Amino acid sequence: MDASFIHFTGGQTGAWQVTGMTPVIGPALDAVAAIDLHTATELLPSNGTWTLRGFSSNVRYAEKTEVEQLRAIQSGLGRPEAICAALIPIRKSAAWWALAQDERRQIFEAQSHHTATGLQYLPAIARKLYHCRDIGEPFDFLTWFEYAPMHESAFDALVAALRQSPEWQYVDWEVDIRLTLQA
Amino acid sequence: MDASFIHFTGGQTGAWQVTGMTPVIGPALDAVAAIDLHTATELLPSNGTWTLRGFSSNVRYAEKTEVEQLRAIQSGLGRPEAICAALIPIRKSAAWWALAQDERRQIFEAQSHHTATGLQYLPAIARKLYHCRDIGEPFDFLTWFEYAPMHESAFDALVAALRQSPEWQYVDWEVDIRLTLQA
Repeated sequence: MDASFIHFTGGQTGAWQVTGMTPVIGPALDAVAAIDLHTATELLPSNGTWTLRGFSSNVRYAEKTEVEQLRAIQSGLGRPEAICAALIPIRKSAAWWALAQDERRQIFEAQSHHTATGLQYLPAIARKLYHCRDIGEPFDFLTWFEYAPMHESAFDALVAALRQSPEWQYVDWEVDIRLTLQA
Repeated sequence: MDASFIHFTGGQTGAWQVTGMTPVIGPALDAVAAIDLHTATELLPSNGTWTLRGFSSNVRYAEKTEVEQLRAIQSGLGRPEAICAALIPIRKSAAWWALAQDERRQIFEAQSHHTATGLQYLPAIARKLYHCRDIGEPFDFLTWFEYAPMHESAFDALVAALRQSPEWQYVDWEVDIRLTLQA
């Protein structure tokens, strides 16, 4: 069976060194020096100072033309030059989750241009989305980004644009953790 | 933290007595005499002859007007008269999961009228959907239905209608387990 779950474990040691942790909306997470990533077929218990757990899934909002655009230009994780990363756990409000599929799609793309905005920053910024609301985790999503140092300001512009979008009125907890790959 | 996971454990004993197990598409499940339901905050290991594990989630396809129609007339689980149940685990093909959101929605409702068909059988048939593809389970969905004995033929008509829909061309494993509540 494939590894279904990813575990981000914050602690004293790990492959990725923490360079900053900023509570954007809501409370901070306990400070850690490094984050390690593990995959497993079963959910592992919390380890280190904290462990955030999630799973990847099928696309939830992207339509056919958007999926094709994304697949054509997106980068994979693990590029040698992409030694900067960001782990941004996000929780959305109960009001968001009570919305029907078409209402969420309307806010996500027609109002907030989430995919269209992200496309502007490809292929420089590689991204991967993990879901975790359904498995009882404190956050709803764990968003993971990798990029080269020269693209850090572009990444800052990307998250700034999303945070100003109508979709972000439904975000009630967000922590921005920046990392560099240990040499 | 709320109980995030449901566990359907098939074995020799349990709250629901098995009255029939039919492999509709693909292989059978090992025969069991009864099924027990448990909820837990963590995924529990397999127990009994087999354990199927899943979680409930937000709606994935239903639009605002459909959600309102469903909420207005659907029944909850556990009605005293609803002593019949069906557990129907379903797996969809890789081709289904590679589709974008709008393509899946098109097949699900515009072509197959999944929600519209189900609405015709409310409030007699109570239903609950559990997801399990994302947690590495053998099936993608565990669908659970409860109804009074007088509505068994209506339930048969409902599943027959769905099995003839275009959506079901993407179903590659389905087992139909019928149950009655132990007196």
